[in-house]
Amino acid sequence: MTEPTLAQGENRRGVDVRVYDIILKKRRGCELSEEEINLLISRYTQGDIPDYQMSAFLMAVFFQGMSVKETHALTMAMAHSGETVDLSAIHGVKVDKHSTGGVGDKTTLVLAPLVASLGVPVAKMSGRGLGHTGGTLDKLESIPGFRVDLSKEEFVEAVNRVGIAVVGQTASIAPADKKLYALRDVTATVDSIPLIAASVCSKKLACGADAIVFDVKTGKGAFMKSQSDAEHLAELMVDIVRQAGRRGAALVSDMDQPLGYAVGNSLEVAEAIDTLRGEGPEDLRELCLSLGSLMIVLGGKAKSIEEARRNLEDSLNTGAALDKFRDLVFTQGGNAEVVDDPESLLPSARCLEAVPSSMSGYIKGINAENIGVASMMLGAGRRTKEDAIDPAAGIIILKKIGDRVEQGEPLAMLHTNDWHSLEPAAKLVMSSYEISEDKCNPPQLIYKVIEK
Amino acid sequence: MTEPTLAQGENRRGVDVRVYDIILKKRRGCELSEEEINLLISRYTQGDIPDYQMSAFLMAVFFQGMSVKETHALTMAMAHSGETVDLSAIHGVKVDKHSTGGVGDKTTLVLAPLVASLGVPVAKMSGRGLGHTGGTLDKLESIPGFRVDLSKEEFVEAVNRVGIAVVGQTASIAPADKKLYALRDVTATVDSIPLIAASVCSKKLACGADAIVFDVKTGKGAFMKSQSDAEHLAELMVDIVRQAGRRGAALVSDMDQPLGYAVGNSLEVAEAIDTLRGEGPEDLRELCLSLGSLMIVLGGKAKSIEEARRNLEDSLNTGAALDKFRDLVFTQGGNAEVVDDPESLLPSARCLEAVPSSMSGYIKGINAENIGVASMMLGAGRRTKEDAIDPAAGIIILKKIGDRVEQGEPLAMLHTNDWHSLEPAAKLVMSSYEISEDKCNPPQLIYKVIEK
Repeated sequence: MTEPTLAQGENRRGVDVRVYDIILKKRRGCELSEEEINLLISRYTQGDIPDYQMSAFLMAVFFQGMSVKETHALTMAMAHSGETVDLSAIHGVKVDKHSTGGVGDKTTLVLAPLVASLGVPVAKMSGRGLGHTGGTLDKLESIPGFRVDLSKEEFVEAVNRVGIAVVGQTASIAPADKKLYALRDVTATVDSIPLIAASVCSKKLACGADAIVFDVKTGKGAFMKSQSDAEHLAELMVDIVRQAGRRGAALVSDMDQPLGYAVGNSLEVAEAIDTLRGEGPEDLRELCLSLGSLMIVLGGKAKSIEEARRNLEDSLNTGAALDKFRDLVFTQGGNAEVVDDPESLLPSARCLEAVPSSMSGYIKGINAENIGVASMMLGAGRRTKEDAIDPAAGIIILKKIGDRVEQGEPLAMLHTNDWHSLEPAAKLVMSSYEISEDKCNPPQLIYKVIEK
Repeated sequence: MTEPTLAQGENRRGVDVRVYDIILKKRRGCELSEEEINLLISRYTQGDIPDYQMSAFLMAVFFQGMSVKETHALTMAMAHSGETVDLSAIHGVKVDKHSTGGVGDKTTLVLAPLVASLGVPVAKMSGRGLGHTGGTLDKLESIPGFRVDLSKEEFVEAVNRVGIAVVGQTASIAPADKKLYALRDVTATVDSIPLIAASVCSKKLACGADAIVFDVKTGKGAFMKSQSDAEHLAELMVDIVRQAGRRGAALVSDMDQPLGYAVGNSLEVAEAIDTLRGEGPEDLRELCLSLGSLMIVLGGKAKSIEEARRNLEDSLNTGAALDKFRDLVFTQGGNAEVVDDPESLLPSARCLEAVPSSMSGYIKGINAENIGVASMMLGAGRRTKEDAIDPAAGIIILKKIGDRVEQGEPLAMLHTNDWHSLEPAAKLVMSSYEISEDKCNPPQLIYKVIEK
């Protein structure tokens, strides 16, 4: 009974020898060639490589990493694994934006009409995804009548006519990414920087934008817990899209607490409208101005960040941005009156409950991830693909880091139509707050800008 | 389009959460509990854990390793994943031996009758396996009439009556190991020391021996290329079987060149017979005496290694060991006359060809792995499970490390019934030899003994 040597194993594997060798090469920390990566991705997409070989490969990548060259090759292979969208029928420089995601992140709802109001065409294709509070599509769908299933022709026509449209991403975009993501998700291989970069960039490149701005979140509520990892990811993604012949820029921004105050679909739409009216939370407004400035410059509508920012502020002040949001809602079949009366026209929850503070002091920290989980408990997100979302459910944060709170004063307000969820959600929200007797400072919002 | 966070992923996975957590825990380098390892192995054996999760786990083990405690738990879980053999009907202390395998390793053919001749019962269950030159079963089957498919009753009866029997391992021994090994083999996760140790020890423990001696090979032709890895593996395996309440010992021995001169099934049987007659190659004889001494001491048939060795030498000198081999062949239906006239009675090949040396000098190195591959080309081994073995095929090495060779003098003799294979095999054998103008010393045979 002898343990076969590797050479024996190789003979045994027959046709799989090349895939085996690619796994082994990566496991040993050697750089893969573009040809090897193409073979891996095209054969995996076609179903010719079993999941068990791919998951071993992904775990080897987790430990050994990938060079920029390899990551670029992986991205391109994934981007070309399915349909690629041709946006050339849309006039102007199409600028897209990607956020690595966070709790209460309704940035797109503000940013898209804001930059569109300055003449940058926004042709946004969004994935629905799973998450604590649904994605951009779910948020927009909380507006009565809003439809995201425009045909390709309607989509192009809408962007050319009103400068903005948001639709669901077709299933045929980057199928390799879908298959790989599902596998990574069950094999503990999600949090690898090159794999994240390739996943994000492959979809964005396949969606056809000319320029892409990345918002990489960092902090306790973000996927990238460490600032240096976030910076590394941001630089890598900008590098990849530039190598692919597109323009790119990135921000690294804080996600140590939820962004703004609202968490949940219609609650976030209402907050986005407030912000477009110039009345929203300071952090959300600032993030939208920073990201927007990069988008305007990349889109060629301003010569400098400073000029871009002045124009964006004007657009918020004059109501041009809000008008553009109104155009978007109207063009896609939604009730545009929502923009002027969100409180009565957006879905609202029957059960509201305040979460009181157990002590007096200053808010030192908020576990944003747990706030997200609590809002999902209330009905705002999906546990499984089949779950329905309650558009009215969610949480309004009332105290953020640095705020003073007295014992018994509410920290947050829960919104739901399922009263059974109130007690566990309240407990989780309460435990998400860290309260200190000493004064605390709110966290910095933007850690890094990657421009040129 | 946001990248879901781990917490979201966890909700998505539903019933797989525990397996996911085990992969993640190992990926992070934390020690798994016995309960976690049992869950993993029992559910995987039952088919409740998909291969893609297990291969990610195995790759994480490759990088993070396993503690002795984890390796022991893994071994026991695998050993108990199927049938365990009860050898209590066999009288005396049953001592088994395992070799990590190498080219030309016919040790068992010599060692089993040798120790049996001193009263240590040998109840050998061998896997057939894949390899350059077949396993012990294939070698024995090159003796006309020899059958390895004894029933359990015949097996026990044979060991109790003549002191020795060799049978095929039943498929129900350690099914977890079979499944895991097949997966490791195609995912580049074979060469992990704790996984190798658990694989070897689980089968040996399930086969019911009271004591086990391990022969861990090291060098260019071995699975363990480095001596320190080989020592580590040897110590780990002895540790594991002792923790399981059995006796254990190990050798670390050289596999920088093939063992003895013969590579191929009937060629190796003939060489084993020579050795039992006291006329075999010095390295094979020495290794058998060293391993045999450990087995005799563990089996309680000598008080010291020195005493054991003297008795083993006597057994070779008096012909007692050769008689025991004759008993084995006869009892299992083989033509016992083979023992006295192997040259005419063992299968022989029609095509013989010498491989001449291209230069004069001293043999500095022989790539044993390539010698093995060449002998497989000639028909001695299996590429796939379905391949038939040609018992007569193989290679007789004529020059070993340290030997002087003149230009044109044969380095090796190829034996085959498939003359098409001669040219490529000859090329490979020629390229396996490294010849130097300077004198070279033969390698040390035994690097380490792990006794008490």
